[in-house]
Amino acid sequence: MSPESNIYAARVSALRTLMCDNNWDAVIISGSDPHCSEYPAPRWKQVEWLSGFTGETGDIVLTREHAGLWTDTRYFIQANKQLEGTGIELHKTRIPEQVLIPEWLASQAFSGKNIVNIALDGLCQSVSDIQALKSHFTDDREVRIIDVPDMLSRLWLDRPGVPDTPIFTLEDKYAGESSDSKIEWLRHFIKSKGCDAMLICALDEIAWMLNIRANDIEYNPFAISYLIVSEDDVKWFVRENYDDIGIALSESTGRLFINPEGINYHLYSILDKNNLVTGSSPIALRKAIKNEVELKGMKDIHIPDGIAMEKFLFWLDEKLNNAEEPDEWEASEQLGKYRAEATGYLGNSFETISAFGEGAALPHYCTPKVNAPKIRKDGLYLCDSGGQYLNGTTDITRTVPTGRCTQLEMEDYTLVLKGHIDLEMAVFPKGTAGCQIDYAARSPLWKHLRNYGHGTGHGVGHCLGVHEGPQEIRQNFNSQPLLAGMVVTDEPGIYREGCHGVRHENMLLCKELQTNEFGTWMGFEPLTLCHFDTRPIIRDLLSMDEIQWLNDYNKKVRETLSPLLPTKIAEWLAEKTKAI
Amino acid sequence: MSPESNIYAARVSALRTLMCDNNWDAVIISGSDPHCSEYPAPRWKQVEWLSGFTGETGDIVLTREHAGLWTDTRYFIQANKQLEGTGIELHKTRIPEQVLIPEWLASQAFSGKNIVNIALDGLCQSVSDIQALKSHFTDDREVRIIDVPDMLSRLWLDRPGVPDTPIFTLEDKYAGESSDSKIEWLRHFIKSKGCDAMLICALDEIAWMLNIRANDIEYNPFAISYLIVSEDDVKWFVRENYDDIGIALSESTGRLFINPEGINYHLYSILDKNNLVTGSSPIALRKAIKNEVELKGMKDIHIPDGIAMEKFLFWLDEKLNNAEEPDEWEASEQLGKYRAEATGYLGNSFETISAFGEGAALPHYCTPKVNAPKIRKDGLYLCDSGGQYLNGTTDITRTVPTGRCTQLEMEDYTLVLKGHIDLEMAVFPKGTAGCQIDYAARSPLWKHLRNYGHGTGHGVGHCLGVHEGPQEIRQNFNSQPLLAGMVVTDEPGIYREGCHGVRHENMLLCKELQTNEFGTWMGFEPLTLCHFDTRPIIRDLLSMDEIQWLNDYNKKVRETLSPLLPTKIAEWLAEKTKAI
Repeated sequence: MSPESNIYAARVSALRTLMCDNNWDAVIISGSDPHCSEYPAPRWKQVEWLSGFTGETGDIVLTREHAGLWTDTRYFIQANKQLEGTGIELHKTRIPEQVLIPEWLASQAFSGKNIVNIALDGLCQSVSDIQALKSHFTDDREVRIIDVPDMLSRLWLDRPGVPDTPIFTLEDKYAGESSDSKIEWLRHFIKSKGCDAMLICALDEIAWMLNIRANDIEYNPFAISYLIVSEDDVKWFVRENYDDIGIALSESTGRLFINPEGINYHLYSILDKNNLVTGSSPIALRKAIKNEVELKGMKDIHIPDGIAMEKFLFWLDEKLNNAEEPDEWEASEQLGKYRAEATGYLGNSFETISAFGEGAALPHYCTPKVNAPKIRKDGLYLCDSGGQYLNGTTDITRTVPTGRCTQLEMEDYTLVLKGHIDLEMAVFPKGTAGCQIDYAARSPLWKHLRNYGHGTGHGVGHCLGVHEGPQEIRQNFNSQPLLAGMVVTDEPGIYREGCHGVRHENMLLCKELQTNEFGTWMGFEPLTLCHFDTRPIIRDLLSMDEIQWLNDYNKKVRETLSPLLPTKIAEWLAEKTKAI
Repeated sequence: MSPESNIYAARVSALRTLMCDNNWDAVIISGSDPHCSEYPAPRWKQVEWLSGFTGETGDIVLTREHAGLWTDTRYFIQANKQLEGTGIELHKTRIPEQVLIPEWLASQAFSGKNIVNIALDGLCQSVSDIQALKSHFTDDREVRIIDVPDMLSRLWLDRPGVPDTPIFTLEDKYAGESSDSKIEWLRHFIKSKGCDAMLICALDEIAWMLNIRANDIEYNPFAISYLIVSEDDVKWFVRENYDDIGIALSESTGRLFINPEGINYHLYSILDKNNLVTGSSPIALRKAIKNEVELKGMKDIHIPDGIAMEKFLFWLDEKLNNAEEPDEWEASEQLGKYRAEATGYLGNSFETISAFGEGAALPHYCTPKVNAPKIRKDGLYLCDSGGQYLNGTTDITRTVPTGRCTQLEMEDYTLVLKGHIDLEMAVFPKGTAGCQIDYAARSPLWKHLRNYGHGTGHGVGHCLGVHEGPQEIRQNFNSQPLLAGMVVTDEPGIYREGCHGVRHENMLLCKELQTNEFGTWMGFEPLTLCHFDTRPIIRDLLSMDEIQWLNDYNKKVRETLSPLLPTKIAEWLAEKTKAI
């Protein structure tokens, strides 16, 4: 197939014509939305529309001579496949020899050019992206940014509109604090910064502030909107007045507080820089520290979520015992059905990863709807899934044997479980950040010269994004301490290309244990309720403490869930959770 | 005693007169020297001369109404004692409610003043100190810095001169690389930065570059000097032309590379800012990665160093067995004598910490020469010491029982040893920084709700400073990876005020272990050779792996040192190193 006959090649060609007609030297198409969201709504899946590439991160740069997609290690195989025939070349990031977009534009594409005109949709570009771009053009050269909001709409004729799913109030019995109270608190903060108002662009922060939820973005119960909180007003730019934000900002007088990491370049350009105070958003931290009601919700919801998981694992066991081999997609659908039985279920919290064998070795495997691989006997099946509920959000990974396992599968299974348990059992002084305890999960793997390329844990929202900051557990130097009331995941793994993948994930609540002469001590309590399969465990690789923890945990799962499960499944669970 | 009758109060008074005569609003006296050294020579012990305070860090600020000393947690007790009668007040740092000098000057001492004249000795003040000071005075206010080089010489009539101990060449058989070769390498670096020359102020970097050593600073074999390396010249400003550096810098034309962290404010003021390129010094990193000859030296020297330690511990045991109670000073002198028996011994690498019982609980205990406490029976004795030798530098801490120990002493002893061993056994991927494995040493203590307030490990120079960067093992977010050829200490501890202190320290060599599909793997090899006393160990607190490590290590110490020890001591060591 020649590039020209490819739908994406045709789109690239149309965009290049637009570029040439306007005398732009380059066009950047970003993979983000106007709210710097992790997952954009269909309207902003611009990279996918232009290139067919469906990875979670990717940006496209077009010049007269070149079309390139920049994406990271996780998506190299997928990008190579999806870009075939488009004429778009893959530029690899997160590798030592990477050349990122700003450097590529300044030093390769236009190294000899003094004035470079670059067009982009400022709504979908972060301020820091533009700063990075400008910093690569030294004193004697100039990069001119041409901000064309909604640029692609000129070519993308059936482009979806801004989403407008029904918005509903998350009642105080779920939220635990009224929106009024949150606004009052924020006003104190705004005042303390010497400001008159604050602009909030992050969709999860708006949802949390206003105690509202919607379904504008798949898996994320947000409403696409902006919020300005001032001393005597709360202006919510949503639905019919969504686009009024620009006028409101250009008319605004007083001093405005913004988080420069969360605002798009287009809006930033409008702001009066002399009346701006910048800093990180206080909402992210306050939202991460769950209140008593949110915590109770997060605990409570893990009972139906655990029941769904146990029903699902029982279903899978039955299938395999009957020599049926369900496919990965069928399995993920089945799990979704069990989850949907829970009161307050809103949907999944992210796309279920349902992967057998070598599929599980791909860190961001996407189960195909059609012709999904079978879950076969004698291997490892990995399922990473979660639900959105009115009283919380869940995220759990279980890896289970589908029969006999190889020695290597058992070793990997046990070592990952050992790392998982060691982090659950960690005790650390108040003030410790995630990167200072990440070693707990990795060290058992490292001792056997094994590792994983992703973070160990992320924050989880309360009926909000399944990923939230500011805390995390990974090697990055993020100084945010783990504080009482925060929720994090604990998900080490081992991945062997073409072979198998193992990951074990619980959600943990961070809490204070006690105070002594050495300070205040913190630890974790697991929220997730679903047994760990003991069959692939090599007992000698675990310490007595770790075995004790595992037996206690499985016992707690059995005792909590059994009374709520059908007898047959309760009996099966009793067998599964026998102490080792 | 009234403040006026105190010698230090009189000095403060004289300085205040100088201040008033010159219409200065404040004077800052810093605890550093012109080379930003960790330990200054007597000439620059200005804080001690002015206040009598002998702690390792401390700065004094004088205004018309106030005299204050700023120092950290380690020195509060000592400062309170030493400042008595001086009229100087203690300002506490490294505590949550600290008010540092810039903030204190800007917001407390001179909060209502628009123009503040502050005099200081720019030679002894870092550039970043001055920047911090200026940043605390907002737009509408002005802080005027009056740089008075050698200010105190006007009052300190018997002030010591710039040291001028004999300088000698460290032969290539010790250094492993000629100075010419190092200069050639540095010229490549200078060129790569688009510069014509580099100014080096750090004394250890100069000693390493030129393969020279001297004895200008106690415990540090450096020569007080500056170095400028250019394309065709190497200018060393030392001894009679030490002061010519100012003229040389003011006359210099080409582009100069400097490390802004290592240059004093006075010299920085002279430089042509338009011809300056700043960045971290490449010498620190290259110096930290020992060459083959340096590594062999560092390994070799631990044999005589270990012999000195074993002789010393035997001597102590004998004394205690004979119901003699040597004092802490006598013990430290005895250890020094044993070390001095080694070929190539130059002196101690820092002031020996020789501390029994409660003394050992003070993190920076200083053994008094006169009336030193006795090392008594039935407790824990801690000795932290090291030697400077032509072929290396050592740093070792052993804590030993002087008879029976309490349960708490045994627990602390065992847990610190467990942390020490866990770090020695750590395996980690290439690229890992010290703060990412610091957990290894702390976690066994944390699990028992115990901790220590200092770093876990620091780099060690080769016949240079006993503390060197850029690597370290501590909770700070220092991104420098631990690389093959680097040497670090491993020294966790537990300190119980008024009771006892435990620290176990070895020096470790960082090395590559092997490469597999997950990457390249790194680990440690101990350089230190001295047994760990097994008597206070609570065996149940150690894992089988840890016990195995300990037995193997003690066996290696015995097998390496016994043939070189007097029979009686070799027999004693055989007993001491029996497997547990």
